[in-house]
Amino acid sequence: MVAMTTSFSLAVVAGDGIGPEVTSQALKVLDVVAPAHGISFSTTDYDLGARRYHATGETLPDSVLEEIRGHDAILLGAVGDPSVPSGVLERGLLLKLRFALDHYVNLRPSKLYPGVTTPLGDNITGRGDIDFVVVREGTEGPYVGNGGAIRVGTPHELATEVSINTAFGVERVVRDAFARAQARPRKKLTLVHKNNVLVHAGHLWTRTVDAVATEFPDVTVDYLHVDAATIFLVTDPSRFDVIVTDNLFGDILTDLAAAITGGIGLAASGNVNPDRTSPSMFEPVHGSAPDIAGQSKADPTAAILSGGMLLEHLGFPEAAAQITAAVEADITGRSSAPRSTEEVGEAIASLVSDRLSAGG
Amino acid sequence: MVAMTTSFSLAVVAGDGIGPEVTSQALKVLDVVAPAHGISFSTTDYDLGARRYHATGETLPDSVLEEIRGHDAILLGAVGDPSVPSGVLERGLLLKLRFALDHYVNLRPSKLYPGVTTPLGDNITGRGDIDFVVVREGTEGPYVGNGGAIRVGTPHELATEVSINTAFGVERVVRDAFARAQARPRKKLTLVHKNNVLVHAGHLWTRTVDAVATEFPDVTVDYLHVDAATIFLVTDPSRFDVIVTDNLFGDILTDLAAAITGGIGLAASGNVNPDRTSPSMFEPVHGSAPDIAGQSKADPTAAILSGGMLLEHLGFPEAAAQITAAVEADITGRSSAPRSTEEVGEAIASLVSDRLSAGG
Ligand SMILES: CC(C)[C@H](C(=O)O)[C@@H](O)C(=O)O
Ligand SMILES: CC(C)[C@H](C(=O)O)[C@@H](O)C(=O)O
Repeated sequence: MVAMTTSFSLAVVAGDGIGPEVTSQALKVLDVVAPAHGISFSTTDYDLGARRYHATGETLPDSVLEEIRGHDAILLGAVGDPSVPSGVLERGLLLKLRFALDHYVNLRPSKLYPGVTTPLGDNITGRGDIDFVVVREGTEGPYVGNGGAIRVGTPHELATEVSINTAFGVERVVRDAFARAQARPRKKLTLVHKNNVLVHAGHLWTRTVDAVATEFPDVTVDYLHVDAATIFLVTDPSRFDVIVTDNLFGDILTDLAAAITGGIGLAASGNVNPDRTSPSMFEPVHGSAPDIAGQSKADPTAAILSGGMLLEHLGFPEAAAQITAAVEADITGRSSAPRSTEEVGEAIASLVSDRLSAGG
Repeated sequence: MVAMTTSFSLAVVAGDGIGPEVTSQALKVLDVVAPAHGISFSTTDYDLGARRYHATGETLPDSVLEEIRGHDAILLGAVGDPSVPSGVLERGLLLKLRFALDHYVNLRPSKLYPGVTTPLGDNITGRGDIDFVVVREGTEGPYVGNGGAIRVGTPHELATEVSINTAFGVERVVRDAFARAQARPRKKLTLVHKNNVLVHAGHLWTRTVDAVATEFPDVTVDYLHVDAATIFLVTDPSRFDVIVTDNLFGDILTDLAAAITGGIGLAASGNVNPDRTSPSMFEPVHGSAPDIAGQSKADPTAAILSGGMLLEHLGFPEAAAQITAAVEADITGRSSAPRSTEEVGEAIASLVSDRLSAGG
């Protein structure tokens, strides 16, 4: 019997700080799971981030962006370093990728695995049932970079930031979120915004959710102001199933969501283009953590789970589930003894291969 | 001996839902503490909120605003009702007051009192030492109402929200926050923003903090992105002393801060004009909670503490401290048995008067 292998090209942007360390563990786990599903990966490394910026002044040259665009998916570690002025790599590299590749669904699942330490106390309702996903809009809102400043550095400086929201942009992410809610057992969608203050954008979001809801009659719809949503995330997080929200609110809510489910060391994300007109990008929610870089202290779990999301996006939900199950088994069995980045990666990789041999 | 009495005029906007219930308890406590400090209050009630809006279509007529402006301070309960379209009372009444009266310091203290239930678990570092204040800018940012929409209701709708930030506006609130940090034992100031994405506004805030810091050499300065700040609020809240932040980030952080310190039933706030060119306004952070209105279930503690902040602002820090101490005693002694709004108000009022007679 001749097994067919589907080959996928991955653009790998390992980035700065702990980025390369966690990315290599994610690739290791992908390589373990891939053959069992008839997949192989070819990778191209892109040297982007603080080092390149310091050496050449470049963040993401257009030619590199076009090369990356030719891949099937992108795996990103983390970018950023205190030596680079704030905003340069974020706007010039990370957000440029998200915007240029039209990653309008920024997907961030949060699940509290058994055995994981959470800052929430035992008195929290349904603490054990925290399992939701934030569908964060990725190409609009205050992230568009549509602001400016005049008279900079004088007492008459004026700086603006403009949040841009279009019916087109809001509707496509809302529709995606409804479809995800529909596919989940609880079928519940919560819109988070601040429509009592940001009335123009807020009413567009609210009206869009109301309109799209008619196409998904079995999805329950809820609305929360962003400030109230942060309260519920710490007092009643199991009320959430799918949250759909704006780019900035999503940024804030997902860090808080990560914090209550074991920290950003465990939080994975996908910058997804559901139309598949360009490669989607998968990355841990955490940053480059320069303070612990090169010390093999970083937890690669979030990067590994991001690799799982990549597999799911490419059409291999079973392979993705094997990674998630291995991570869950590893997390649940964790002792308090510190392990190196490689040890965690190795442990998860071997849990994956145990599963593969047991299964087949 | 003839005691001198200073008389202050209060504009009282009890508002909607539980607003009137909690406000009357706050006034009761103010009336108990006032005579001992040679203060008396005259109050004018302003019928503003959902009822008036439905009856007359008015939110805050200019003539009423001008009358309110003539008072020494404003005590506000809560405004808002689901029967009023989202944004109408917020923009037309609450934010109109804050903006028209130039309440540029929105002051929100958070303290975890002993005995108060918090959603945070025992594993949180310094959980017992949570005691910080958020200095939220109150007259700029995305709250200015400077946005709009075109082609509303069509597939080509475009909605914008513009965040306005001026050197003048940022500097005055930053200076106020530094002065508060300087006066506190720990002397620490944390700027919260998102200067890696909202680069224009973010850099104005960052540069302003750096510049004003030179005038306060004994204040330690820290910076956090807003997403990271939400993580620390649940994993290491005792790291915060004074937080200075933008109007929208302050809205979000203070609800979360309230949640971790016992809930919005305890969170007080002041909308302060430190230049005293117009009356400052004191209000609980919570909303009108129409679901429990009229049932005497609302906790008036936040409203009572807001009354304490009002006294502090008018120049009576000892009177304010007596209220805070009475609240602390009441909270610490609370059993789980439910009490009515009046019972809580009565208990705190009598703890205040015990203190006054003990003190002489
Ligand atoms: C690094 C930064 C630009 C980014 C964001 O704000 O989206 C990060 O916080 C994230 O959540 O992925
Ligand atoms: C009611 C609303 C306009 C208000 C705000 O966003 O400021 C409230 O949430 C608050 O925090 O006082």
